[in-house]
Amino acid sequence: MSQTQDHLHPNETQRIEAFSDGVFAIAITLLIIEIGVPHVDAGESLADALWDLWPSYGAYVLSFIMIGIYWANHHSFFRLFVRTDHYFLILNVVFLMAIAFLPFPTAVLGEYLDNSAQRDTAVTLYAFGLLLPAFGWLSVWIYGNVRGLVDERLEPDYLRFLTVQYLLSNILYAGALLLSFLDAWVALVIVVGLTLLYLLPPRRPRYIG
Amino acid sequence: MSQTQDHLHPNETQRIEAFSDGVFAIAITLLIIEIGVPHVDAGESLADALWDLWPSYGAYVLSFIMIGIYWANHHSFFRLFVRTDHYFLILNVVFLMAIAFLPFPTAVLGEYLDNSAQRDTAVTLYAFGLLLPAFGWLSVWIYGNVRGLVDERLEPDYLRFLTVQYLLSNILYAGALLLSFLDAWVALVIVVGLTLLYLLPPRRPRYIG
Amino acid sequence: MSQTQDHLHPNETQRIEAFSDGVFAIAITLLIIEIGVPHVDAGESLADALWDLWPSYGAYVLSFIMIGIYWANHHSFFRLFVRTDHYFLILNVVFLMAIAFLPFPTAVLGEYLDNSAQRDTAVTLYAFGLLLPAFGWLSVWIYGNVRGLVDERLEPDYLRFLTVQYLLSNILYAGALLLSFLDAWVALVIVVGLTLLYLLPPRRPRYIG
Amino acid sequence: MSQTQDHLHPNETQRIEAFSDGVFAIAITLLIIEIGVPHVDAGESLADALWDLWPSYGAYVLSFIMIGIYWANHHSFFRLFVRTDHYFLILNVVFLMAIAFLPFPTAVLGEYLDNSAQRDTAVTLYAFGLLLPAFGWLSVWIYGNVRGLVDERLEPDYLRFLTVQYLLSNILYAGALLLSFLDAWVALVIVVGLTLLYLLPPRRPRYIG
Repeated sequence: MSQTQDHLHPNETQRIEAFSDGVFAIAITLLIIEIGVPHVDAGESLADALWDLWPSYGAYVLSFIMIGIYWANHHSFFRLFVRTDHYFLILNVVFLMAIAFLPFPTAVLGEYLDNSAQRDTAVTLYAFGLLLPAFGWLSVWIYGNVRGLVDERLEPDYLRFLTVQYLLSNILYAGALLLSFLDAWVALVIVVGLTLLYLLPPRRPRYIG
Repeated sequence: MSQTQDHLHPNETQRIEAFSDGVFAIAITLLIIEIGVPHVDAGESLADALWDLWPSYGAYVLSFIMIGIYWANHHSFFRLFVRTDHYFLILNVVFLMAIAFLPFPTAVLGEYLDNSAQRDTAVTLYAFGLLLPAFGWLSVWIYGNVRGLVDERLEPDYLRFLTVQYLLSNILYAGALLLSFLDAWVALVIVVGLTLLYLLPPRRPRYIG
Repeated sequence: MSQTQDHLHPNETQRIEAFSDGVFAIAITLLIIEIGVPHVDAGESLADALWDLWPSYGAYVLSFIMIGIYWANHHSFFRLFVRTDHYFLILNVVFLMAIAFLPFPTAVLGEYLDNSAQRDTAVTLYAFGLLLPAFGWLSVWIYGNVRGLVDERLEPDYLRFLTVQYLLSNILYAGALLLSFLDAWVALVIVVGLTLLYLLPPRRPRYIG
Repeated sequence: MSQTQDHLHPNETQRIEAFSDGVFAIAITLLIIEIGVPHVDAGESLADALWDLWPSYGAYVLSFIMIGIYWANHHSFFRLFVRTDHYFLILNVVFLMAIAFLPFPTAVLGEYLDNSAQRDTAVTLYAFGLLLPAFGWLSVWIYGNVRGLVDERLEPDYLRFLTVQYLLSNILYAGALLLSFLDAWVALVIVVGLTLLYLLPPRRPRYIG
């Protein structure tokens, strides 16, 4: 191991974090770009047109909070990793690809949530859009644990607790995805509920001894 | 308290500031994207079409300065906080959500300011768009004070002065919002006036003893 | 002076630089967004449509290099300032506003450069778009010098040399702007020539003694 | 040499890296903006419209990974340079210009890959879009080596290995570009294959003695 760390710079994880923070900050701020200015003709009301965009505002708030939570999560748990390797870095890029994809399902949800014919599809895509980063993060987490990149002073119980929590997220988003074929609103309630749950403070790291 | 700070990294607030600075920088730079290139047909004048975009240029300048002021403000006053907790972090994300939303009311104002039928609505939305971050920042500030996250060496008078100032901002933006239903131009003058006022140097922190 | 610096953090200019670098990086990367994917109908050639975008590619390259030069310049000369004050910070925001505006004239130039009826207007706007940051930087520079924010160990001759250079840039861009009313191509040649000139290495700081 | 380094700040390469990282992070996150929300009329299926965007999703994934690899590469190999000069900085800006351009060929590929009449052109442009940063990085690399900006403790064999590798990339992308005139799919397979190859871990720096 000392071999592989020979030329490993001490600020290695810091630069990955900085790049990741950049992607989070940009993805979160790009969300607003997807809400287009409504075009109203003479005789129409801009106020009405702005009210009609409520699904877009809702999708904006939901996705902003989700990306914000992922940022805070990445920020808190990435520092449990004290080593890094090539495929870990690539898995992190794949995770970021899922985060950066979120503006698209958000825009589709905003556009079609109040369209009864297309609502189910829009919610399915949105649930899928949330499953992707959940799965991406789970992959980063499991890879990092299997390869022994985490701080070995952490309690095994604590690590297991996090693994279970990340697995559960994946199952719940996959469940919401499946449910969206039956009832879009129920699926959306699960997704929003999970988001609210994630707003609770995360469990602090517990160290051995 | 020493308990909660056990695993609190020294650069905790610095990373929140870095993420916030990222959102500020992106939101401020995205403003220009909302000004579309005018399409002129043969026989029409591009120069005229460019002049007709004056409300968009005005809205760009106003919002750029507003986000710039919020950045400088966040930058100056965020360092009065010497501790951080989970909900403080979340409130900061909500504040950033309001900052990142600003390009939308800016684009609507640019599009409809010279449309007499829709002007009032556009100004109402813009005043609302400025009230949101003012309220977001007030929430961050009050929460941080109530939870004792601020540097305890700061003079209570100084802290009270800032609280009153932030409250006043909220009242004035809410006032501009209400006025916009009566007279859009008066509301806009208040908003621009407040912006100019904010360009004055902020009061420097005063420490006890 | 020791008074005003009491609570001045040592990394003050570094954070302004970080924010400025963010705006530079975003503005430079947003340039590509302004080049829309051409829509071709059946029977039309995508290759032809892509060739027809040559003014957009040219404008992209020119503005990318310009913003890159401004970044390198800001990066080199901002560190000659060893102090900062409130209005200096605001002038820097105004300068960044001019940088962030550049994608708009770039897009207009790309759209209308090969339209003989509108070319002059597009070039006028572009020259104006380049005059703005030149003037913004000149303002930052002169304010910083007048207020004594520059490192006093720098040779007065060196400072004067830079002032003259920045003044000259402004005069040349203003000249290009005026010329664009007579002949768009000549104005564009001046603008491109200036850009090439700026690619030469800047004169290194000279210190007293 | 000591002369030129007189006023060279120790964090010189770090700030260039930070700016470059910013451009990478923005370019990678902007990719999603190019995928527009499909507009479906009553009676049409949103699900079908979303499936029809598969070339856009594919192009998104491919370009995201490519920019991610370039980021990791820049990140790993830029630190082999221990000195910097003016033209090195400019070449790095030119390289970033090629990276920031990538969203455009990506969008064109996404739009026209399943259009048999335009596919060849779209793939040619995409191969060209990948050749550009490969050539840009080769230029940065060769310039840095010729000018002696690399760490002299590195083994000449190792440096030669990297030069050959970068040259090969250029030849392969140029080959894919030429092949795209004959068969777009074969060219695309080469491009995708190269991307997968780049996912392998890079050879670690070898130092003398």
